[in-house]
Amino acid sequence: MRDYIGELKGMTREYQLLNESSAILAWDQETYIPPAALPERGEQLALLQSLAHKKLTSPRVGELLAACGCSDDAPWGSAGADTRDGAYLRELYRAYTRQIRIPSTLVEAIARATSAGQAAWAEARGKNDFALFKPYLEKVLSLVVEKAQAVGYQDHPYDALLDEYEPWMTTSEISRVFSGLESSLKGLASRISERPQVDDAFLYQSFSLEKQRKFARQIVKELGFDFSGGRIDETAHPFTTTLGARDVRITGRFREEYFGTGLFGLIHETGHALYEQGFDEEITGNILATGTSLGIHESQSRTWENVVGRSRAFWEHYLPLAREYFPSQFKDVGLDTFYRGINRVSPTHIRIDADEVTYGLHIILRFRLELALVRGDLKVDDLTGAWREASRDLLGIEPETSAEGELQDIHWSMGAIGYFPTYALGNLYGAQFWAAFENTVHDTDTLIRNGDFPVLRNWLRDSIHRHGASKTAGELCREVSGEDLKPDFLQDYLENKYRGIYGF
Amino acid sequence: MRDYIGELKGMTREYQLLNESSAILAWDQETYIPPAALPERGEQLALLQSLAHKKLTSPRVGELLAACGCSDDAPWGSAGADTRDGAYLRELYRAYTRQIRIPSTLVEAIARATSAGQAAWAEARGKNDFALFKPYLEKVLSLVVEKAQAVGYQDHPYDALLDEYEPWMTTSEISRVFSGLESSLKGLASRISERPQVDDAFLYQSFSLEKQRKFARQIVKELGFDFSGGRIDETAHPFTTTLGARDVRITGRFREEYFGTGLFGLIHETGHALYEQGFDEEITGNILATGTSLGIHESQSRTWENVVGRSRAFWEHYLPLAREYFPSQFKDVGLDTFYRGINRVSPTHIRIDADEVTYGLHIILRFRLELALVRGDLKVDDLTGAWREASRDLLGIEPETSAEGELQDIHWSMGAIGYFPTYALGNLYGAQFWAAFENTVHDTDTLIRNGDFPVLRNWLRDSIHRHGASKTAGELCREVSGEDLKPDFLQDYLENKYRGIYGF
Repeated sequence: MRDYIGELKGMTREYQLLNESSAILAWDQETYIPPAALPERGEQLALLQSLAHKKLTSPRVGELLAACGCSDDAPWGSAGADTRDGAYLRELYRAYTRQIRIPSTLVEAIARATSAGQAAWAEARGKNDFALFKPYLEKVLSLVVEKAQAVGYQDHPYDALLDEYEPWMTTSEISRVFSGLESSLKGLASRISERPQVDDAFLYQSFSLEKQRKFARQIVKELGFDFSGGRIDETAHPFTTTLGARDVRITGRFREEYFGTGLFGLIHETGHALYEQGFDEEITGNILATGTSLGIHESQSRTWENVVGRSRAFWEHYLPLAREYFPSQFKDVGLDTFYRGINRVSPTHIRIDADEVTYGLHIILRFRLELALVRGDLKVDDLTGAWREASRDLLGIEPETSAEGELQDIHWSMGAIGYFPTYALGNLYGAQFWAAFENTVHDTDTLIRNGDFPVLRNWLRDSIHRHGASKTAGELCREVSGEDLKPDFLQDYLENKYRGIYGF
Repeated sequence: MRDYIGELKGMTREYQLLNESSAILAWDQETYIPPAALPERGEQLALLQSLAHKKLTSPRVGELLAACGCSDDAPWGSAGADTRDGAYLRELYRAYTRQIRIPSTLVEAIARATSAGQAAWAEARGKNDFALFKPYLEKVLSLVVEKAQAVGYQDHPYDALLDEYEPWMTTSEISRVFSGLESSLKGLASRISERPQVDDAFLYQSFSLEKQRKFARQIVKELGFDFSGGRIDETAHPFTTTLGARDVRITGRFREEYFGTGLFGLIHETGHALYEQGFDEEITGNILATGTSLGIHESQSRTWENVVGRSRAFWEHYLPLAREYFPSQFKDVGLDTFYRGINRVSPTHIRIDADEVTYGLHIILRFRLELALVRGDLKVDDLTGAWREASRDLLGIEPETSAEGELQDIHWSMGAIGYFPTYALGNLYGAQFWAAFENTVHDTDTLIRNGDFPVLRNWLRDSIHRHGASKTAGELCREVSGEDLKPDFLQDYLENKYRGIYGF
């Protein structure tokens, strides 16, 4: 069997090099490409992606997986569930079977529908007119449901969609965790809304872009980002991307009139990047050298952004430096004002503007509607009303326009149904891991206050990063925290933090 | 036959998209890549290049070319030599036969030898010790000669090497043209050396990098570079590259202590870029959308850099602006001083530092030695002595070290034998085209003085650029100038220009 795995690894190595090449083209497309080059870049990317698809789904891969004893019941084959080779087979079998089960005619139909869908969505959002997007969303939704049927599932078609972003997670587990979370977030948001609002006007001043870049770069470096194998560039919609085992790039966006976007965005991307820069040498260059799920990935970015970057201790450490960079803007802002301001909670219609407390409610809203759409319990025709009702129920506010409601996110137009939950799972896993970290080092505040970030980075690397996808999200969660995912850790973290800030 | 060509165009389109993808990876490698990512980038590039090679050399391409009637005697097949389809078949047949005639074992041997050769060359140059490079050069040379035999030729194995860089050019034609050029350049350099030297000290001051960037960018834009389909970035060894039909990127290098490198380098690359941005829509996206030879490409860069950018009229137009950007550096520098300074002639050991007059002699030296090496008349063992002798003969100076002599250029270590002549051909074609342009517009000085660069760009586009590789270099030369390539135009241009500058 060893030889079969060796042959598979040679084939998936080419698959990976092609994916990295696509990532390079895509990175350039989001950062430096001249505008007239965009249409042909689409052709170049489509070719590389189809070559990668052919590599992965070649009949020989199927033969070798069968020879290794892989099946739906034992995707790790005869290598065993607990070995790295078993994990390699498990992840390859999952990716391979997903791709061969979706007929190429369906892949092409989805590509066409989402390409048209994105254009229609952009127009509809611009004109604030859901009717323009409706037929496209209906088409995308029906194809996505068809995809779920093709991939197959045990309990719920949504499981087959989740699997693309959050492997091995199930609809029922998310429902269980989100249901506990929902009531506690609503309760917390309600108690906060009864307290006097904190002031964050100091974040809205004029901040030199050049100084923001330097300040953020210094912090990113101190958090542990390895610039010998990475870069920072700028883009409209920041992201992290891996162009090679030693080539992890983060991107940011700076706004002159608002301090919050640039720095916190880059700390968030640094969290993603530290994960990608932390895989074991042993898995470098094979398909296990990747985040094990989007939820685990998001746990890393949100831990660094929110739990670390928006903590009081972090600004005890960095406020003096911030005052050096921005003396006139911050000289009269005290530590407590600063800390409270960057953690202001206030319900908003727009998810990406949401605070730590209400963010999860935005996700629960989308999860609820996606489930109903996929089940067929909700028609696209009725989406506007359903969105408003859910928003009133969860956030206590109701959008007056589609642009502030069901048209705000690009995801559905791209066919990315089953993606949203990973954002909330990130917060949940992050809090659960953080509690385990606190059990280990005890005084995390002192550690952050002293800028001892390597201690945290090394703990995360050792507990999470180095494994890449060789452990599933569930396995990692149990190994690091000793139990399955549950909402209690996030609830406790938020409760403690915001009780201090809002004083209830 | 039309259908055969259609099928070929579909196949070469994928070939081209893969080459463009490689170009994107290579551009990033020279501009933004983090250092630790370099080794894996080599793997990514090698995979894309091997996929492109497989596309081009697939048996189906051979069948279709045969079905189109292509042969060594009539590479344009039954489409005819004078049609665009014929030109397409001619260039495809040339590329295809070159690649299938070189056995893959030889391709791999050359890749290994040149990879080791480049490393050895860098070390040898650093230590100024030719002996360290000698065995590697012997290996590379023998493989390159083997390649020439595999490709085949009529008169001289060097023809088969030339063909890679300067298609359809022959050793005998270059010998004929270079022989006339040699005596005139030696004579001109000798007369200049008897005159008082011009002063260029004003170019060696401190020039803010940021201001140099802005100044050069403005000029590049005014010369006609299309930023909607292109970019400027910075790199150690500037180049121009085409990442797509509407994606042509130039690169520059600025030195704070010397004004000459940054601006003139970017004007040079702009010349290359205007060629690549000027192909007819009709050939966009197929293999004719490329420069027809390196010599023709270099004619464009050198025309803009030297004939235009180092003309007196150009600085009548731009010196006032240069004084705005660099008041303290240039306020006391008069137009004539400026013009003379940027055209200083002085023999140097290093080719890339050479002036317009002696540059050709550096190339003639290399051409002479390459011919002797390929013929076997000169042994690598005797290269140091042969170089010094040729340098004394041609340039009147003899390098005392190998680093200033036979180790100065990377080309041979890369197996690029037959490449150097294209640099001199660029000057020759450029002068011959320029004479034709002068016949059309008459007063080119006034045109340049007024900054009417679009007139020149449009004439070049109409006469040269739009054809891409649909006309060979020889065809272009005869069509534009009415005769075959000859040294007289370059000789007259240099004679007139430097008589004025040095006053003889």
